[in-house]
Amino acid sequence: MTERNGGEGERATVVTPSAEFPPLDPDELRALRRIGDRWQVARRDRPPGADTLPVDPTLRRHGDQPTPTRFGRLAPIAMFRVGEPDELVATEPANLPGTRLGRAVTRLRRALFGPPLSSAAVLYERMRKLVALPVLSSDLLSSVAYGPEAMLAVLVLAGGDALGLSLPLAAGLALLMVAVGVSYRQTVVAYPHGAGSYVVAGDNLGARAGLAAAAGLMVDYVLTVAVSVAAGVHAVTSALPELAGWTVPLGVLTIALLLAGNLRGVRTAGNLFVLPTYAFLVALLVLLAVGWFRAAGRGFAPVDPPPVPAAEGLGLLLVLRAFSSGAVSMTGIEAVSNAVPAFRPPEWRNARTTLGWMVGMLVLLFVGLTGLIHLAGLVPTPKATLLSQLARVTFPTGPWYGLIQAATALILLLAANTAFNGFPRLLFFMARAGHAPRRFLHMGDRLAFSDGLFALAVAAAAVLVAFRGHTESLIPLYAVGVFLAFTLSQAGMVVHWRRRHGPGWGRKAAVNAVGAALSGLVLLTAGVTKFTAGAWVVVVAVPLLVLLGGAIHRHYRVLHRSLALHPPPPGPGPGPPVVPARPPAAGAAAPEDEELPEQVRHLVVVPVARLNRASLRALAYAASLGQPTLAVHIAPEEPEADRFREQWRAWGDHLRLETIVSPYRAVIGPLAHYLEALHASRTDLVLTVIVPEVVVRSRWHRPLHSRTEQRLRAALRRLPGVVVTSLPVHLDE
Amino acid sequence: MTERNGGEGERATVVTPSAEFPPLDPDELRALRRIGDRWQVARRDRPPGADTLPVDPTLRRHGDQPTPTRFGRLAPIAMFRVGEPDELVATEPANLPGTRLGRAVTRLRRALFGPPLSSAAVLYERMRKLVALPVLSSDLLSSVAYGPEAMLAVLVLAGGDALGLSLPLAAGLALLMVAVGVSYRQTVVAYPHGAGSYVVAGDNLGARAGLAAAAGLMVDYVLTVAVSVAAGVHAVTSALPELAGWTVPLGVLTIALLLAGNLRGVRTAGNLFVLPTYAFLVALLVLLAVGWFRAAGRGFAPVDPPPVPAAEGLGLLLVLRAFSSGAVSMTGIEAVSNAVPAFRPPEWRNARTTLGWMVGMLVLLFVGLTGLIHLAGLVPTPKATLLSQLARVTFPTGPWYGLIQAATALILLLAANTAFNGFPRLLFFMARAGHAPRRFLHMGDRLAFSDGLFALAVAAAAVLVAFRGHTESLIPLYAVGVFLAFTLSQAGMVVHWRRRHGPGWGRKAAVNAVGAALSGLVLLTAGVTKFTAGAWVVVVAVPLLVLLGGAIHRHYRVLHRSLALHPPPPGPGPGPPVVPARPPAAGAAAPEDEELPEQVRHLVVVPVARLNRASLRALAYAASLGQPTLAVHIAPEEPEADRFREQWRAWGDHLRLETIVSPYRAVIGPLAHYLEALHASRTDLVLTVIVPEVVVRSRWHRPLHSRTEQRLRAALRRLPGVVVTSLPVHLDE
Repeated sequence: MTERNGGEGERATVVTPSAEFPPLDPDELRALRRIGDRWQVARRDRPPGADTLPVDPTLRRHGDQPTPTRFGRLAPIAMFRVGEPDELVATEPANLPGTRLGRAVTRLRRALFGPPLSSAAVLYERMRKLVALPVLSSDLLSSVAYGPEAMLAVLVLAGGDALGLSLPLAAGLALLMVAVGVSYRQTVVAYPHGAGSYVVAGDNLGARAGLAAAAGLMVDYVLTVAVSVAAGVHAVTSALPELAGWTVPLGVLTIALLLAGNLRGVRTAGNLFVLPTYAFLVALLVLLAVGWFRAAGRGFAPVDPPPVPAAEGLGLLLVLRAFSSGAVSMTGIEAVSNAVPAFRPPEWRNARTTLGWMVGMLVLLFVGLTGLIHLAGLVPTPKATLLSQLARVTFPTGPWYGLIQAATALILLLAANTAFNGFPRLLFFMARAGHAPRRFLHMGDRLAFSDGLFALAVAAAAVLVAFRGHTESLIPLYAVGVFLAFTLSQAGMVVHWRRRHGPGWGRKAAVNAVGAALSGLVLLTAGVTKFTAGAWVVVVAVPLLVLLGGAIHRHYRVLHRSLALHPPPPGPGPGPPVVPARPPAAGAAAPEDEELPEQVRHLVVVPVARLNRASLRALAYAASLGQPTLAVHIAPEEPEADRFREQWRAWGDHLRLETIVSPYRAVIGPLAHYLEALHASRTDLVLTVIVPEVVVRSRWHRPLHSRTEQRLRAALRRLPGVVVTSLPVHLDE
Repeated sequence: MTERNGGEGERATVVTPSAEFPPLDPDELRALRRIGDRWQVARRDRPPGADTLPVDPTLRRHGDQPTPTRFGRLAPIAMFRVGEPDELVATEPANLPGTRLGRAVTRLRRALFGPPLSSAAVLYERMRKLVALPVLSSDLLSSVAYGPEAMLAVLVLAGGDALGLSLPLAAGLALLMVAVGVSYRQTVVAYPHGAGSYVVAGDNLGARAGLAAAAGLMVDYVLTVAVSVAAGVHAVTSALPELAGWTVPLGVLTIALLLAGNLRGVRTAGNLFVLPTYAFLVALLVLLAVGWFRAAGRGFAPVDPPPVPAAEGLGLLLVLRAFSSGAVSMTGIEAVSNAVPAFRPPEWRNARTTLGWMVGMLVLLFVGLTGLIHLAGLVPTPKATLLSQLARVTFPTGPWYGLIQAATALILLLAANTAFNGFPRLLFFMARAGHAPRRFLHMGDRLAFSDGLFALAVAAAAVLVAFRGHTESLIPLYAVGVFLAFTLSQAGMVVHWRRRHGPGWGRKAAVNAVGAALSGLVLLTAGVTKFTAGAWVVVVAVPLLVLLGGAIHRHYRVLHRSLALHPPPPGPGPGPPVVPARPPAAGAAAPEDEELPEQVRHLVVVPVARLNRASLRALAYAASLGQPTLAVHIAPEEPEADRFREQWRAWGDHLRLETIVSPYRAVIGPLAHYLEALHASRTDLVLTVIVPEVVVRSRWHRPLHSRTEQRLRAALRRLPGVVVTSLPVHLDE
């Protein structure tokens, strides 16, 4: 977290394709200069013209563009155009793989997901507030479709009478929403470049806290997809009960479509979001207005709910569980703080205003709906969602009911899509900090983080299937991850203000402290009261993810430390290369440290099984390098060794041959051990092992060839200072 | 078949570990000499001492034996001892693989199957006739345990009365046995080095006929194991009916034990075979003697069989089917002709005598048992074998019954074991002739053909499971393969005699012709009458195996032709190397043809993703080769390319750098196409691509690294003249 996240700029929530190639830090650049100086000195005696290339690397001298031969059987397409001096730009055909199968797969993929997009097409779109609102709020607002229901579903366990508690609980939740909302408004101001919980917690509370927040968010994203899709499917099956048996397949299909859409790289184009979100808002507002108007006509007299027998006693634990279930309505509240740079300037002010609107809307919808449900005397049933029941009660005829259900399903789909935007970005930031595999830095050819999208889709589909697409069973898992991220993010803000000690820091810290405390309370409540109901999955998963992220980070640190450039030791210094007069003692100089070409001592080794065109090519290649060369033959028994030596003499004995009799007929083992023994006797040598590899075109022919080359490479790769060169030999097929 | 099977000696049935390294033929040796001469001329200008190696390849100068370091963490064991001058001999520890997992697996394997055996331990044991008889006849004689029963099981379909036909059928079969036996006696004399049906048919009727015979034999071996094991298990369950439900698991277990025993390399040690075979012989002879003696006491009056209703009418087809079922008793008759060299001299005479004994014994047992079964009025039932019923009738009390059943089970096990000897040997000879994958030439470290053993065990177990361990269902498949091999082998002998035109060739040819005609008749009968009962499997499998063998042969011929040494074209001739003044036109010279080191033109290409220790090592290695070197960087977007060029200049711009912007972020595709374009612009160049490969010790860390190196190698391997060098970089873990 600390060492690689340099400036504020890099910490920003901007996603670039260059993130795979981080720039060198100043220390490394200095080391690079010093290493370069040593090369300069060492190489000054080279004859002039030694560096002349036999070809023009810019492919210009060749006149025409090179025509693809056997490899790219594509018709003469210009695969490269010449850019600036010394630069080529690959055109689209150059991305096609070389094999026929690979090309077919690529074509199919492009037909499905569209042609590749250039890096220049990364969108840095700025959003107006009225566009930002639907884009960023679909996740938050959509959760009122299942939040009140989640709360009531717990309360109803204590019987129909307990449902009356929904009103005070809704009021409490409204307070929580406002507190967390206000708290996040401060984050927006403090991190004008945008910062999710992962960054805020990591920056202020340490890498482990950041990882915990990230783990909570990852779980949150997976559950957002699973819950939103499950709830969306439920909204559809409430309207069309005949589809009820198809819940899980419909859900998985929806996730697959979301994945496909996001692999196509459907950007967070505002337009797509504006209509459904506003439609949902308008639909719900109309529903609330009509409902409350009618209720006012009745003098706000609540309809008596149907009698429901109590399954549990009404205790504090149940109330707390209902409260934390209702709190899932707040998922998505932090979307704005991630996306501050996407607003038009002044970014922070616009973002803060939008956040205010969103929270206001959330409170209005949540409280309004809960109250109306209470007044209408509705009770959760597995057959239809409460929102569906409410819509049917309010609009028994006319198109309104269908419209409300459609808008609900649509906004839930958008909410799931939001996770498809957020999850790969989170993994990108984690990967940039070394907490996740590097592959998540790579943008596919549609500018989408394909690996992250796949990971999310697979995880969400697995969760959906495991819980049989049942929203109620997923809710207990949901709150823990979200509120862990909220708590850590806001606790991080408290530390942030304390460290900054800016004007009014005390008040700001207090606001965030209240937010953190309330979120923490919900987190604890959810974790404890729902532990057995499913929250234990998250309670176990989050620490595991934190440990995994830590382990990944440690490995990348080892890698970074191993590969980082260090200034050369002052020992030999710039000057003519030091040729050791005698072989150094074993283990003295690790050959992997050498960094000057003139210090590399070669021994070329050619394993020869029999004398044929392939091995003679290998011998010629080896000899052409002009370095000391040794041929090795492994014989299964003495007579064969003698016969081979005879053939070698017939050839003329041009290179030194060593035969090794392997009476147990193994080839790889003795050869590897022999090379190791050679290496041990002169550790400063670089052994280049040249292995001819017969290349077979058809995969049906592969079982007919021993995989000696591959097995030898696998056996040798752990030997330091042993380089394996594979010389392809193509059959005249 | 023809081109690679040089002399009589190579065609002999001797199995050597050197077969993987066939000697060069005289043409190739001549070509090798001429190529060597050209090297001589081209290299005469090299400075003296240029060939001095920096190490002693015999590892002697090093004083002590090299102590294994990181790679073989084995304690200081001498892995090599010095043999003749310039030769090392690998000791056993040198065969252990380098990874901990690999060593553990090897240790486990050795614990199960014994320590490795040296090539010198190949047995060339010579057998006395009295030892050869049991070794070679277990397969043949054991088949009387199921042959008569197979015949009667068909006859009984026409009702109990039809069983009387067994006597004339047995007489006919005895004639067939004698005819085929006499025919094979001639093969023994004609091929004193031993020759199975594969060789005899291939030599005289062409490769395709040889392959057909081999396919028949392969099917035969698989069925021998399946049938013998099934019949052996049936012999056991006849005595112990409570095991009847476990037929299939018992059979598979038996096959697994046979496989394990043969993987241990249990040689065809005579002793193992002598006792059970003679015990079986003695037991059956006692049974026959007692049975016939009692029958004589009754005046040979047959006991009336229990009434059996007829399921089919008694027609010619049924009789023929019964005949061909009884003919399965002849499987294994050709064992002697394979094994002539294993006899004491004069080999052919001893082999012929043994064959005579075996056939005589077979006729005696078969006819005697069939007659006795008829006299005792026994009828086949699924519960107990006829042999078991006969033994019980003959010895109602006393230990004889148990002894007969035990001896039967044991000899059937030995018969199955015979197939475990024959099948891998057959594959060995096929592989030597290029009709089967080369891997079947390789002897494992226990001197056993492990791959062939596995193939047989898997096939036999699959057949056994597919037919639920039911001997009767397997019999219809059996006869076709065996008699195909018999027919082809003896037809081949007819051609053999006709070609030789030696003294008395007409008579000899006539004998073999009779054998071939009779075998062919049985083959036809079996194929037609049992086609629907299961023989169709073999009728389909044999042509497929022939086609497969032909395809394998064609591929190896292409391989051989591609790799064979040809004398160099007289064009440039011996003389100073011809340096082309200008690059030749594209496609003019295929660089894979170059065979003189001085003619190889190099261009070293180093793909560099970022500047770190790994890439600087690769650059140093590349530059140290002293050849023109080009570095290539693939950038995802323009700014990154600029930044990289800046770093390159900071380093000192020591090597030519070409940056390629890949706007679609692919790396492998553009790089491969660029290298192809370079190659196309100068086809005489050998491009050596140097790729650093970070070696991770734990496999858990592998997903954290991109497999760029492997993917690049896969993309480049089909490009001619592009050599890939992987430079390992080890982490300081």
